[in-house]
Amino acid sequence: MANTEFGYVRNFEQRDALPPSNWIVVRIDGRGFTKLCKKYDFQKPNDKRALDLMNASATEVVKQFVDVVLAYGQSDEYSFILHENAGMFERRASKLATSISTAFTAEYCMQWPTFFPDQPLERPFPTFDGRCVAYPKRRILRDYLSWRQADCHINNLYNTTFWNMVLKGGMSTTAAEHALKGTVSSDKNEILFSQFGINYNNEPLIYRKGTVIFRAYDTESEVNGGSTTGKMPDPTSKSQMEKAKKRKQKARIAVEHVDIIGPSFWDAHPYILGTNTAKGSTE
Amino acid sequence: MANTEFGYVRNFEQRDALPPSNWIVVRIDGRGFTKLCKKYDFQKPNDKRALDLMNASATEVVKQFVDVVLAYGQSDEYSFILHENAGMFERRASKLATSISTAFTAEYCMQWPTFFPDQPLERPFPTFDGRCVAYPKRRILRDYLSWRQADCHINNLYNTTFWNMVLKGGMSTTAAEHALKGTVSSDKNEILFSQFGINYNNEPLIYRKGTVIFRAYDTESEVNGGSTTGKMPDPTSKSQMEKAKKRKQKARIAVEHVDIIGPSFWDAHPYILGTNTAKGSTE
Amino acid sequence: MANTEFGYVRNFEQRDALPPSNWIVVRIDGRGFTKLCKKYDFQKPNDKRALDLMNASATEVVKQFVDVVLAYGQSDEYSFILHENAGMFERRASKLATSISTAFTAEYCMQWPTFFPDQPLERPFPTFDGRCVAYPKRRILRDYLSWRQADCHINNLYNTTFWNMVLKGGMSTTAAEHALKGTVSSDKNEILFSQFGINYNNEPLIYRKGTVIFRAYDTESEVNGGSTTGKMPDPTSKSQMEKAKKRKQKARIAVEHVDIIGPSFWDAHPYILGTNTAKGSTE
Amino acid sequence: MANTEFGYVRNFEQRDALPPSNWIVVRIDGRGFTKLCKKYDFQKPNDKRALDLMNASATEVVKQFVDVVLAYGQSDEYSFILHENAGMFERRASKLATSISTAFTAEYCMQWPTFFPDQPLERPFPTFDGRCVAYPKRRILRDYLSWRQADCHINNLYNTTFWNMVLKGGMSTTAAEHALKGTVSSDKNEILFSQFGINYNNEPLIYRKGTVIFRAYDTESEVNGGSTTGKMPDPTSKSQMEKAKKRKQKARIAVEHVDIIGPSFWDAHPYILGTNTAKGSTE
Repeated sequence: MANTEFGYVRNFEQRDALPPSNWIVVRIDGRGFTKLCKKYDFQKPNDKRALDLMNASATEVVKQFVDVVLAYGQSDEYSFILHENAGMFERRASKLATSISTAFTAEYCMQWPTFFPDQPLERPFPTFDGRCVAYPKRRILRDYLSWRQADCHINNLYNTTFWNMVLKGGMSTTAAEHALKGTVSSDKNEILFSQFGINYNNEPLIYRKGTVIFRAYDTESEVNGGSTTGKMPDPTSKSQMEKAKKRKQKARIAVEHVDIIGPSFWDAHPYILGTNTAKGSTE
Repeated sequence: MANTEFGYVRNFEQRDALPPSNWIVVRIDGRGFTKLCKKYDFQKPNDKRALDLMNASATEVVKQFVDVVLAYGQSDEYSFILHENAGMFERRASKLATSISTAFTAEYCMQWPTFFPDQPLERPFPTFDGRCVAYPKRRILRDYLSWRQADCHINNLYNTTFWNMVLKGGMSTTAAEHALKGTVSSDKNEILFSQFGINYNNEPLIYRKGTVIFRAYDTESEVNGGSTTGKMPDPTSKSQMEKAKKRKQKARIAVEHVDIIGPSFWDAHPYILGTNTAKGSTE
Repeated sequence: MANTEFGYVRNFEQRDALPPSNWIVVRIDGRGFTKLCKKYDFQKPNDKRALDLMNASATEVVKQFVDVVLAYGQSDEYSFILHENAGMFERRASKLATSISTAFTAEYCMQWPTFFPDQPLERPFPTFDGRCVAYPKRRILRDYLSWRQADCHINNLYNTTFWNMVLKGGMSTTAAEHALKGTVSSDKNEILFSQFGINYNNEPLIYRKGTVIFRAYDTESEVNGGSTTGKMPDPTSKSQMEKAKKRKQKARIAVEHVDIIGPSFWDAHPYILGTNTAKGSTE
Repeated sequence: MANTEFGYVRNFEQRDALPPSNWIVVRIDGRGFTKLCKKYDFQKPNDKRALDLMNASATEVVKQFVDVVLAYGQSDEYSFILHENAGMFERRASKLATSISTAFTAEYCMQWPTFFPDQPLERPFPTFDGRCVAYPKRRILRDYLSWRQADCHINNLYNTTFWNMVLKGGMSTTAAEHALKGTVSSDKNEILFSQFGINYNNEPLIYRKGTVIFRAYDTESEVNGGSTTGKMPDPTSKSQMEKAKKRKQKARIAVEHVDIIGPSFWDAHPYILGTNTAKGSTE
């Protein structure tokens, strides 16, 4: 950029690098999706096409940003998890948030015709806001992901019950809302089963659990190859980082609808949140 | 969002509201546009279609975000200026940066076929990163805009000379680069004129000045109607803010290629950076 | 500092420079002064010795930190104003806040025996917390100072009335508190006058207005000599900055109890918040 | 504070709470201590009285701030470590930094006569700047402390050699500086031993290791009693927090000159950095 008499204005730019050794979550949320759902007549309580579009878009984002170790999505939101040692964009919050949210938006708009072939997009086009949050411990990052998946469950159970009452039960939305006020999970399960013959636990996993996307390493050698090399990215071994990047680019992208609150998923894929550090491996 | 045992993770979200009474610049930049230019064979030194696409996208963003008082673009970048009293998204930096950059990205991707009908977009789709900067004084904001327009001029003069030497003069890019090293503006003007018969000052304004987009109020009543009401947005007069918003939405969007370094443009449109404050109008 | 294998921990230090071209307020507040007042039996509603000690301490701080253009104090608080162009400690918030608050604390403790000769200080020793706030406009800085002086007035009027009712009127503190609930300024003035024969406007200015401390330039040449040279401190003219520093160190320190809400004080001392900038002098 | 028309200026105060679940270091440094050392004729390479004064001051600070779990000092600096779950001042950086640095400064000034009975303090009085740094992992906090202790060792070995060469060896400071350029630790050990008959390892521990201050719990019940109760301070059990506070206030304050780089110290006092969390105890 030109170094003129006006160049001093650069001094007003604030540094916004996220602190090292923190897991970074970039969460994006659909902007004004309530209107969008109505406009394109999304099915209630879940529109499979819309979820598939979210997941297809997120898959491309995970492919493109190799520092993303896992993504979790539900409804019109997606959380992209960057490794605590990730060095992408020098961990600058605004670069991370805008790069990931614009990449997601571009995919969503461009892939729309594949999932909604009969409904061309009109203005305002779908967009997503985004933000970064830093989590200092693996355990707390796990709690973050549990928080989102618990949210998915609670909302889906409510919505499934609500829309069955309205669409099959013939209730007004106001009446259904009123009827559900104060109910707990078991109440909703009971309503679904007794009134509509629905066993909630048989509902599709994609609705109940949301979607988990990650690089899957199917053999031991892939995992070891993919290891990071220490508590701080080693700037001297650029060749090693290049190798790691290529391996990540070639990795299979897994898209699953599984529980990530309990330990099973993490025990089966220890490399996702793994850190090969010389010391401090217990932290 | 669900208020479960995991809800504590929200406490890690940091507030990022920009300070009040500062002009906000959201600048977006094309990511990896050097590759993109090559892939879609953009013309050198300027590709009119690409600039028109940038401007068409920015126009829609200005329409959509009524707190934007002016936008300035050149090359693959655009700066959106929010009024120092703007209250959009409670001035949260990440919301502002991601909302504007995803809106721009969506427009760019969706309008692409209009400007490049024979070249369908392929992955990686064009995206834009973004950032917010706060400027405490109108005078410094003006310097920011001057900085960008001076940058436009310097780059365009260089590029125009360089590509004439290469494309018309038959020089290699290395030779042209070498020949231009250490030259000043008058040298480049001379090369253009003596070797290629080009008077730089006759080059199209869009290339030399970039593009300015703003809401144009053509009558006095429009201007007064559009006034903000004080140094802090008055939360009590929601109806007035609604009115102002509607008026902004109806305003004509002007797209011009003019000098914004000197005072003429600003003298002709005093309302763009105007603030109707009870006191302190000189600051 | 040692550059060992542990040196990476420095990367966790966050930059905290305050934005350029903003007026900086460092406000310090006595910690736990309610207890301190009781312990050393401060007089009610105002203890002249305690205020004199605050002012004597602040005077030394103003002398020591030449970038402070004015200080305003009342009760157990003091606000130190740094010029919008001040470069001290590269405008780092933590350096500014801790340097000024520890300098004030040291003065307060060391000068204590002068003002309270019969009451040696005991643990916990008096301390002051501090914080920095950036104000983007001179007008808003003025409003900040008005805010503090209005606070001084409101509290002093209340306290003067309250303690007269208790000490002279023989009311219990609870009764006095109850009696004053919901009263406005004129009510309190009336109580003071009719019940205790006190014309509030004749109360000492130090109680009603607080204390203003500033470098006084009594001749025109002093003022011009003390001018800063542009919108950004010019790093090339170190000699000029050195000269300015010396002149500030020699300046007379004025300690006054005057109104700073109205324009008179500022009109009489235009250099205090003055900025000699080539352009933008109106902002 | 008065809620007047000026109250809006409060909106310019930025929140500066440090992120939860991070260890907080408040490090203070003597301001201008090179001059101070000369003025009061501190002994070289170490002045025992000055170090004792630093340690006596830090001891009082540790007593006063019960959220401090450990303090480490050397030369004219001290680092106060707050537990990762500490809630003091809502973890606001400026409150923490200024409260601790003013408390330290007050102690240093007030205790000065005890350690330097013949040299009354003169202006400028000793002060200390301070800053907060957040460390996301216990392991990294340990590295921070190792960094400071390694720094102590390196500086002390250099200074001990340098001042022996000057004071006993009769070299000029310039000659000694020149002679030491490029030497490694073993070279300095050799110089000390062969030229001055000094075995560096027999030098006092306070000089070689610095000073560690912590609350010592000598029995198991004290430790358990002192436990925090979970990953987030439980706001519902105020009584428990009060109890913990009282126990901390009664605890013996240990002042030791020991190695804290290796594991022995930490193994012997596991409660210092201990966290009783229901889950995630390994992190």
